[in-house]
Amino acid sequence: MNNPSAPEGGRANAGNFFEDFRLGQEIHHATPRTITAGDVAVYNGIFGARFAVQSSDPFARAIGYPHAPVDDLLIFHVVFGKTVPDISLNAVANLGYAECRFLKAVYPGDTLNAVSEVIGLKENSNRKTGIVYVRSRGFNQDGAAVLDYVRWVMVRKRDENAPAPTEKVPSTPKSVDAGALGAACPLIKISNYDVALAGSPHRFDAYAVGEKIDHVDGITVEEAEHQIATRLYQNPARIHFNNFAESKGRFGRRLIYGGHVISLARALSFNGLGNAFHIAAINGGRHVAPLFAGGTVFAWSEVLARSEVPGRADVGALRLRTVATKDRPCADFPYKTGEDYDPAVILDLDYWVLLPR
Amino acid sequence: MNNPSAPEGGRANAGNFFEDFRLGQEIHHATPRTITAGDVAVYNGIFGARFAVQSSDPFARAIGYPHAPVDDLLIFHVVFGKTVPDISLNAVANLGYAECRFLKAVYPGDTLNAVSEVIGLKENSNRKTGIVYVRSRGFNQDGAAVLDYVRWVMVRKRDENAPAPTEKVPSTPKSVDAGALGAACPLIKISNYDVALAGSPHRFDAYAVGEKIDHVDGITVEEAEHQIATRLYQNPARIHFNNFAESKGRFGRRLIYGGHVISLARALSFNGLGNAFHIAAINGGRHVAPLFAGGTVFAWSEVLARSEVPGRADVGALRLRTVATKDRPCADFPYKTGEDYDPAVILDLDYWVLLPR
Amino acid sequence: MNNPSAPEGGRANAGNFFEDFRLGQEIHHATPRTITAGDVAVYNGIFGARFAVQSSDPFARAIGYPHAPVDDLLIFHVVFGKTVPDISLNAVANLGYAECRFLKAVYPGDTLNAVSEVIGLKENSNRKTGIVYVRSRGFNQDGAAVLDYVRWVMVRKRDENAPAPTEKVPSTPKSVDAGALGAACPLIKISNYDVALAGSPHRFDAYAVGEKIDHVDGITVEEAEHQIATRLYQNPARIHFNNFAESKGRFGRRLIYGGHVISLARALSFNGLGNAFHIAAINGGRHVAPLFAGGTVFAWSEVLARSEVPGRADVGALRLRTVATKDRPCADFPYKTGEDYDPAVILDLDYWVLLPR
Repeated sequence: MNNPSAPEGGRANAGNFFEDFRLGQEIHHATPRTITAGDVAVYNGIFGARFAVQSSDPFARAIGYPHAPVDDLLIFHVVFGKTVPDISLNAVANLGYAECRFLKAVYPGDTLNAVSEVIGLKENSNRKTGIVYVRSRGFNQDGAAVLDYVRWVMVRKRDENAPAPTEKVPSTPKSVDAGALGAACPLIKISNYDVALAGSPHRFDAYAVGEKIDHVDGITVEEAEHQIATRLYQNPARIHFNNFAESKGRFGRRLIYGGHVISLARALSFNGLGNAFHIAAINGGRHVAPLFAGGTVFAWSEVLARSEVPGRADVGALRLRTVATKDRPCADFPYKTGEDYDPAVILDLDYWVLLPR
Repeated sequence: MNNPSAPEGGRANAGNFFEDFRLGQEIHHATPRTITAGDVAVYNGIFGARFAVQSSDPFARAIGYPHAPVDDLLIFHVVFGKTVPDISLNAVANLGYAECRFLKAVYPGDTLNAVSEVIGLKENSNRKTGIVYVRSRGFNQDGAAVLDYVRWVMVRKRDENAPAPTEKVPSTPKSVDAGALGAACPLIKISNYDVALAGSPHRFDAYAVGEKIDHVDGITVEEAEHQIATRLYQNPARIHFNNFAESKGRFGRRLIYGGHVISLARALSFNGLGNAFHIAAINGGRHVAPLFAGGTVFAWSEVLARSEVPGRADVGALRLRTVATKDRPCADFPYKTGEDYDPAVILDLDYWVLLPR
Repeated sequence: MNNPSAPEGGRANAGNFFEDFRLGQEIHHATPRTITAGDVAVYNGIFGARFAVQSSDPFARAIGYPHAPVDDLLIFHVVFGKTVPDISLNAVANLGYAECRFLKAVYPGDTLNAVSEVIGLKENSNRKTGIVYVRSRGFNQDGAAVLDYVRWVMVRKRDENAPAPTEKVPSTPKSVDAGALGAACPLIKISNYDVALAGSPHRFDAYAVGEKIDHVDGITVEEAEHQIATRLYQNPARIHFNNFAESKGRFGRRLIYGGHVISLARALSFNGLGNAFHIAAINGGRHVAPLFAGGTVFAWSEVLARSEVPGRADVGALRLRTVATKDRPCADFPYKTGEDYDPAVILDLDYWVLLPR
């Protein structure tokens, strides 16, 4: 075909394949994004979270924020979305997250950018794919880091015969250190923290390690909802939007972005964790099974650990495991039988939240 | 099950049951909510109202507002949503509204809180349920009341043997007094009110008591739409979101929030009532039949009364009955046969609107 | 029926019929609309465009905008939507556009109004319909024109016996002159235009006439999505919203607003045209076939012409044909066989975009 000036492979972004990544490589991602009150509203309409700090400027100001901060997970999704065209457009599977820290509060009007560094590479024995480990960072308009996380993903090779890179598998901590948990949270004036307005009487001290909390409610997801949310983040992963292709693909339909389930579980967790106003870190997460439109998501949480935040008397940290299920209420806390997940489990998330003391 | 520290009944909000309410009890509801231009945009996308005052800052300023106010019903839904976790989480049926007055305009940036007072209690003869009457008030960040309404709802008892409270049934007026209608509406510079821009030549004086208006258009509702709207209001009523449970429930599917129908009827009413720029009061409303996704909503209105607003020459008030139907155009104004509603009717709303004179 | 005070034909807007239009008639459309960051967010959630200029205030400022401008097509849809109640409520078909020029950037906070002038009339030989040609203009709150386009539409007659008007068919240029292309684009500081952040290395000079670009991705459209978008524009065309009526109509279902396809194609075109940050003009467009919910939209583009913008060294203009298809990937650039469009083609759009040099 006569196609003047078109570069080899076409103009469109074909994404990186496994052999395109180099250890130590730094990738500056498109597209910078100013987060507005409009983005917050669309996010609220999709997930319906009810945490007072993110919902009310006066509430946020009373306790020490300049005004209501942007939901932590909206920040995560926007930064994550930016990495997709460069990191995971040719991914077979998103394998895991680790050491995700929220480093600075984000407010409407702030602009997010993202940069990833390749910190590990490991070709698979089939030589068709390999695992890419990246540390991705989100920055605001002043260049201050707002988010930092490690992610690893299985990526196709373009050419099976491309040589394997030197193998390096980075080590990541099982859990983010408590000393790193308060960075995005200003000093909270806890005497101004109104638990009635917040919707829950339970402060940090009320929770004990081992407690399990059923979040009770269920939310059914519609195609339009997850598409709108995922586009809001400018995440162009094809599997979420193209039913023509996916109807012939692995699942026979569009797959819902895994982060959608995290946000649903977080919104559900308000019922039982209403004062857990800030996600300080994500230790790890596993998308155990896919979610499709029409499924109803439930969730429960277990308190894995409690920690003081060094140097701070205002807030304490709970390490939670939040488990989300599909079409399965969680009154009996479904999780694993031996090594095997309950077939209803779709998300196993390990993270730290802050609560007022 | 060993569940350390968990309070009896769990951490999650189980809502109040009939015997938990006390006459005179005052309930401060969570979650405070700053209304933003983003909320307004999501609301507009869901309902598509075209009233000029709420749509255009310059139009609003020209006639006497500081800038475009937030849609009256968005205020209502947000305040109503806050009351749900405390008042109606265990409701069997939402029985009625009365004496709903809009008391102060709300603008993007304002923050809404809600407080309810229990003003009536009446156990039902089956001893399984009772009727709770509350006066709910919405306040802005300065503590000024923006909305005030009475609602009664049938609530389950936790324990059938719990003793019945002293019965009190409050009396409410059939219609809000005309003297209370202008509170949320600044003095309108009617010479600046441009009926061409507003989209209708018909001012207050054009309408006569008894006139019926077919609003012509129909809007089909999708699951994603009512879920997004209802979550935007942070209304957590389970019946709207959980298809897993509702598919086995009374209707076999998710029920659309009754307020959604009110907003649809209001948006439709622009066609025929384009200058009815402000809902000043709701005298009463009945959700005659449920609405489900896929249904197409039509509406018509009748002018029940006309009134001057005491002390004001700028605006006049029309008392309207707006009837919404499901899958039934309204050219012949379907309503009742004797005492029985036409089977297509889903909403019977009695309210006051203001129009320029 | 006794219906006091109701005007003949009812209060509701019945729209104009062919015989209601007069050559030279000027129509001031309702409803003025302040565009907010909320509208931008809803639009982004529906379409997911990733052009950096519209996405990031700092990016926009760095290159010469005061801050991020509103997406060109959102402006178009809002202005277009205002014309619908007066021009095309009784339309049989939307026949074409020409000479659409974006004249001034629009920013959140600006308010749009629309005025149309009837510039041509031609009754059809069947005497049942006629073609109305209008030049529609969008203005901001200062009265400055932001958009100007010609549209022709086939409109029903109310009365077949109404006399035919003097026939006048205006001539419009095949393509907007290059001299008119830069009006809405400030002088770009191209040294500050960061192609890595923008997501594409290809500037104006990289593209040659005749090049074809497959935009690769597909987007499946849901009913809720097109309804929310079209209501956001306050476009009340009935065929998009009323499934009760449309299920018995020509297509048996709701038709998606043609402009929705244009916005989808524009969002898809980012992949291959990431630096085409501004639509400067639309030369013409044809909605070749209807789109319905559930369809997956793909797109490809051909560079029809390249042009300098007179007096400007910062940007160059590409004239593009973007073709959108339904359920048909575009790797082989489906278009026409002879005079006949490929059956998968739904949009044939001819327009000018600006890219940095």
